[in-house]
Amino acid sequence: MSKIENLKLENLDSLFPESFTPDQIAQGKTLFLKEVAETMHEFYGGKMQTIPKAGYYGFNWFNVWYSPGVSRVSTEIRENPKRSFDLSNRGNLIAVVSDSTRVLGDGDCGPSGGLGVMEGKAFLMKYLGGVDAIALCIDAKGEDGKSDPKKIIDFVKMIQPSVGGVNLEDISQPNCFEVLDTLRDTCDIPVWHDDAQGTGCVTLAGLINALKVAGKKMGDVKIAMLGAGASNTTIASLIIQTGGDPKKIVMCDSKGGLHADRADIEANKAFYKKWELCQSTNPNKINSIDEAMKGADVLIALSRPGPDVIKPEWVSTMADKSICFVCANPVPEIYPHAAKAAGAYIVATGRGDFPNQVNNSLCFPGLLKGALLVKAKKITDKMAIAAAYAIAESAEKNGLSPDYIAPLMDETETFRNVAKAVALQAMEDGVARVQMTGDEVYAQAKKEIDESRNLTQSLMDNNFIKEPPLEMLEDCLEKAIAQMG
Amino acid sequence: MSKIENLKLENLDSLFPESFTPDQIAQGKTLFLKEVAETMHEFYGGKMQTIPKAGYYGFNWFNVWYSPGVSRVSTEIRENPKRSFDLSNRGNLIAVVSDSTRVLGDGDCGPSGGLGVMEGKAFLMKYLGGVDAIALCIDAKGEDGKSDPKKIIDFVKMIQPSVGGVNLEDISQPNCFEVLDTLRDTCDIPVWHDDAQGTGCVTLAGLINALKVAGKKMGDVKIAMLGAGASNTTIASLIIQTGGDPKKIVMCDSKGGLHADRADIEANKAFYKKWELCQSTNPNKINSIDEAMKGADVLIALSRPGPDVIKPEWVSTMADKSICFVCANPVPEIYPHAAKAAGAYIVATGRGDFPNQVNNSLCFPGLLKGALLVKAKKITDKMAIAAAYAIAESAEKNGLSPDYIAPLMDETETFRNVAKAVALQAMEDGVARVQMTGDEVYAQAKKEIDESRNLTQSLMDNNFIKEPPLEMLEDCLEKAIAQMG
Repeated sequence: MSKIENLKLENLDSLFPESFTPDQIAQGKTLFLKEVAETMHEFYGGKMQTIPKAGYYGFNWFNVWYSPGVSRVSTEIRENPKRSFDLSNRGNLIAVVSDSTRVLGDGDCGPSGGLGVMEGKAFLMKYLGGVDAIALCIDAKGEDGKSDPKKIIDFVKMIQPSVGGVNLEDISQPNCFEVLDTLRDTCDIPVWHDDAQGTGCVTLAGLINALKVAGKKMGDVKIAMLGAGASNTTIASLIIQTGGDPKKIVMCDSKGGLHADRADIEANKAFYKKWELCQSTNPNKINSIDEAMKGADVLIALSRPGPDVIKPEWVSTMADKSICFVCANPVPEIYPHAAKAAGAYIVATGRGDFPNQVNNSLCFPGLLKGALLVKAKKITDKMAIAAAYAIAESAEKNGLSPDYIAPLMDETETFRNVAKAVALQAMEDGVARVQMTGDEVYAQAKKEIDESRNLTQSLMDNNFIKEPPLEMLEDCLEKAIAQMG
Repeated sequence: MSKIENLKLENLDSLFPESFTPDQIAQGKTLFLKEVAETMHEFYGGKMQTIPKAGYYGFNWFNVWYSPGVSRVSTEIRENPKRSFDLSNRGNLIAVVSDSTRVLGDGDCGPSGGLGVMEGKAFLMKYLGGVDAIALCIDAKGEDGKSDPKKIIDFVKMIQPSVGGVNLEDISQPNCFEVLDTLRDTCDIPVWHDDAQGTGCVTLAGLINALKVAGKKMGDVKIAMLGAGASNTTIASLIIQTGGDPKKIVMCDSKGGLHADRADIEANKAFYKKWELCQSTNPNKINSIDEAMKGADVLIALSRPGPDVIKPEWVSTMADKSICFVCANPVPEIYPHAAKAAGAYIVATGRGDFPNQVNNSLCFPGLLKGALLVKAKKITDKMAIAAAYAIAESAEKNGLSPDYIAPLMDETETFRNVAKAVALQAMEDGVARVQMTGDEVYAQAKKEIDESRNLTQSLMDNNFIKEPPLEMLEDCLEKAIAQMG
C-alpha cells in the first residue's frame, strides 16, 4: 500500500491494502474517485467559468464592447442574422442541454442533478476540441411532474439564436427520440445527441477496426445486440448505413428479440425507431440473446451493469475470431478476461482501465469543432459516419491489434482528424454555411485545440487554478477504504 | 488631427479634422466607436469564452471530472439540490436573458440581435464583479410573430436549476413588467431587470448625493419626471421607498402627466405599474413636463434622445439649486452646458464623457456578486436601495461636488462596497441561504474581482488574447470620417 505522491492519480491499484481482492480493488478505486470528485468539485466550486476572449486596454474599451460602439453589432446582426456567428461567440458555442432524467448510470437526479456531468462535458469540449460550451440542466417537468419532451424542444428552439450547436445529453427514453428527431428537423444549427449518435459513432469506429483485425467484412458478419436503447438503435442504424446487412442483425431488449411480431413495440409510437428495426432485422424472429449469439461474429451489448449479464458459455458459442463490445458502465456485461477465456478474440468496453476503450470523448470534441468551423446547419448521419472512419484511421496509423482498435485519449491527432472529416462531409452534404479546404479545417482545429490546452496550463502555471493539497487526496482514500468495511 | 498612437482610445476629439464643429466631433466619435466595435468583435469572434476553473493533472482527471467520479456529484445534488451551488459553477453564474426586442437604442434586432450587448454585459459582470455570465438571446416569438412574455417566463423557469441568478435585459414594454414580476414571485434565485432596477439603483444613488450637495432633503423636494418606462417607474418607486413624497412627484409620458384621470392607462392591465403611480402621485393632475418643472427641485428624464427634448427655458423655471438627470442615450435630453447656462446646479447624464455619469455598471456587478455570495433567493427592493446607498457613500468618501455625485468606473472599491451592502441586506431580509459577516463578503468580493481582472490581464500578457494592430483602428477612423461626408 503506497502513499499518494503526486496529483496524477496513476497506479491507483497500489493504494489499497494487499489483502484486497481484485474485485475489492476495483470497488475501492471507484469509491476513491467518487470521493475525490466530491471534494474537488467543492474545492474549485465547479469546473467551468466564463472569461473575456477580447482585449481590454482601459475603461474606454467599454465604449467599444458596450454602448455606444456595440450598437453596430446589434444592427449588423439585425440586417444579416448570419453575422451573429462572427460578431459574437455564437460561432464557437455549444449548449449542453439535459433534463437530468437519466444522468449517466444514476437515473433521474432532479433538474440540477446533471450539472456535474454537463460541466464535465463542457470541460472535455473545451480541452479536447477547443469548443466553448455551457452546461444547461433544465426543469422540463410538465404539470404531471414528468419531464415533457415538448418543453425540452421549446427550450432548445428558444436558445437557438445564441449558440452554434446543441448537445443533448442524458435525456431518458423514449423522450430522447422525439426531442432529437424534432429538433434535427426544425433547427438550422447542429443538434447532437451524444448518448445515441456519439456512442454510435465511436462503436462503429471500433467495429470497423475490429473487423479489419479479425479479417471480416461489414456486409458478411452476424451481429447480436443486447439493449435497445438510444445507443444501440443508433449503432444498428449506422452499421446498416455503412454496409451492414440488417438481415444478419438480431437486437434484444428486456422482453426478447426485436422482430415483426413485437406488437408491444408497434403499439407505442414513441418507440418508432425500435419498430423500424423490428421490421428490417431479425427475419428468423430469434427471441433471446443467447440464441442470437450462437455463431455470431459480433456482440454489441449496451444494456445494464455486469459482470454477469453476458455468460461466458454464450460467448463460447460465437463464431471464430469473435468480437465483443460490452460497454455498460461502470461494469461491463462480462469482464474482458472472462470473455477472452471463453474464446472472444477482441473485447472492447467503456472503461479506460481495460484495452479498447470505446469512449464518446474520442468523437464529440472534434466532431463539434468541425461542424462549427464550417457553420454547419445540421449533423447528418454521413457526418457521424465520416467521424467514425476518421477515428478508425487515426488508430490504424499506429498499427492495429486485438488490444488496440481505437485511439487512446492522449493520441490527440484524432480530434483534428475528426474535425476535418466532419467538415468535409458537411460541405459535401450541403449543410455547411462556409467553405474551407480540408487542410484549412485541420490547421484551424489544431490551432484552437492547442491554444485551449495551453490556456488551461497557463491558468495552472499562474495560479489562477490552484493546486489542491495532496492531503485532500489522502483523506479521500481513507474515506473510500473506510466505506469498504 | 493626431495619429492613433496606442490602444487606449483616449483623446478621441483630437483625431478629427480641426474644421469639425463640436457636434461633428461628437458624431464622428460615435461613428468611430461603432466601426471599432464591428471590426474588433469580428477580430476576436465575440467577447466571452468558457474555460476550466478546475485543475487538470493528466488524463486520469477525466475520471474525476467525468465518469465514474462525477457520479457522486449527481447523487449528492439529487439528495440535496442546494449542493448544486457548491459542486458546480451554478453558485457564481448569471444568465443574461433577452428577447432582443429593445436592444439599447436600436429597438427590435431579431432574436440574435442582442448578442453583442448581452456578451458585453457578461464581460462587465466578470471584469467588474468577478461574476460568470452567459449571454442568452432567445427566440420568444409566439405564433403571431410577436415576442410572448409567457415564453420568456417559461424559459427562465426552465433554466433556473443551472444558474445562481438571472439578469433580464432589453425586453420591450410592457412585456418586461409581467416577466419580471412573475419571475420575482415564482423563482427562488435572484431575478434582476437591469434596465429598470439597475437604472433605478444608480439614479437613486446619484440623487442621494446630489441632494446632499444641494442641501436638500428627499422628503421635501418636488420631482418632475419625463418618461414612464421601466426605468422611470422603478426610479419613482425606489424614491418613494427611500422617503420621497409621492404627492410631490409628477411623471409625464408621451400623452401628458400620470394622474388619476388617465383612463387609457387604467384600461391596459399590462401597465399596472404606471397606474399605481397615477393613483399615488401628481394630486394636482399636472399634464405637461414644462408645467411639472416649474419650481421643481429635481428633473429625472429618461425619455428619448436629445438634445432638444428638454428646453432651457423650462430648466430656468426650476427651483434654486436645481438638479437635472437627463439620461437618454446616446444624446441627453439637454446638453449639460445648456442646462447649466439655464440655471441648473447639478447635471447628470448616462454618458462617460460628461461629469456625473449615471451608469448601471456601477451597480449590477457588485450587486450580483453580493447576492451570489450569500446564495440569495431574491433581490428585494431593499437590497437595491442598500446598493444605492453604498454607491452614494463610495463617492462621498472622495468628497462630493456639483460635478462629482457618483463614483467613476475606475474607483473599484465601489463594487465590493455594493457587494457587502447587498449581502447584509439579503440576510436582514431573510432571503440569504448562507450567513456571512460584512467583512467576509467584502474580502471575498475583493479577492474574486481582483482575480478576475488579473486573469484577463494574464490572458493578454500571455498572448491568449491578441493585441489588434493599430492599423485596424486607423482604418476605422478613416471609415468614420468618410461617412461624415
